Amino acid sequence: MGRWEPGARERLAGAAIELYGDPGYEQTTVADIAARAGVTERTFFRYFADKREVLFAGSDLFKEGVLTAIAAAPADASALDAAAAGFEAAAGFIQNQPDPDFPRRRAAVIAANPSLQERELLKLSTVGSAAARALQDRGVDPVEASIAAQAALAAFHLAFERWVSSDEPLGLPALVRDGIARIRALR
Amino acid sequence: MGRWEPGARERLAGAAIELYGDPGYEQTTVADIAARAGVTERTFFRYFADKREVLFAGSDLFKEGVLTAIAAAPADASALDAAAAGFEAAAGFIQNQPDPDFPRRRAAVIAANPSLQERELLKLSTVGSAAARALQDRGVDPVEASIAAQAALAAFHLAFERWVSSDEPLGLPALVRDGIARIRALR
Repeated sequence: MGRWEPGARERLAGAAIELYGDPGYEQTTVADIAARAGVTERTFFRYFADKREVLFAGSDLFKEGVLTAIAAAPADASALDAAAAGFEAAAGFIQNQPDPDFPRRRAAVIAANPSLQERELLKLSTVGSAAARALQDRGVDPVEASIAAQAALAAFHLAFERWVSSDEPLGLPALVRDGIARIRALR
Repeated sequence: MGRWEPGARERLAGAAIELYGDPGYEQTTVADIAARAGVTERTFFRYFADKREVLFAGSDLFKEGVLTAIAAAPADASALDAAAAGFEAAAGFIQNQPDPDFPRRRAAVIAANPSLQERELLKLSTVGSAAARALQDRGVDPVEASIAAQAALAAFHLAFERWVSSDEPLGLPALVRDGIARIRALR
């Protein structure tokens, strides 16, 4: 099967995110992406199942990051502490991607396309449910686990929106911590 | 234009939700729904744009219920109090529909169809954003408004899942209050 192409995956992702911004996601074909990246379509399909997967290929890693950090939280951490540790760790993962502009550009593409927004919300919802199960595995009661996971997810979601939408000086993990502190302060 | 058909809307919704359960949402056509309800397809389209709208026709009323109650909350209510009042009021609206089984059957259809799940999550997310704006209209700072709205939405979402998934003795508004109390108790 085809030769090794150094950096092809990153070039494909970069080309895709450019084209999804202009001319737009709907207007872009896999052939366009491959041409821009200087590879064949066949090479594209070695890395991504379709053009949507360029945007969601990181979702599983994100979820794994959340779940691993929840499992690793200290035994005496509260349900919210453990959930917060999960989303904060995953926030670090997002912030430290090879292409630092990718998450913001990806967010802009998703915001412009309702069908992608729906998919993103479903993925996030799946992470919330998985986080709740990970809390249950720590012995947290199911309802408490759901509310803590959903609250931490809400804090993450808000942090992410702040991070991508402005020249916010705080990094994403710090914004997640701020969101969690605001959850704790709700009365 | 066609004659008035007493109860046609309710009959159509009831027929649709039955058919979406068996044989299933994908397998059901508008013609099937109209036939089961004893009306013409033309009558169906007088009430619903397409078969998906049978499931989401109540979304705007739900959102209006949330926003109206937020606006009507006492001036000294906290952001979370006001958001909670919004979702609790809308929970009452859901619980008191003409067909008391509709919300549970609707939830089962949505849970079985990823494309409907995505749509439902997008609708709920829209309600969350609108609730945050309604809190801002009360003078709440934007970040605080978002976190309170998202937390209340999470409490509602969990309450709804508890309500539809079991022979939960509590009503939906009481479950929303319980979820909000759990948010307040997070440490």
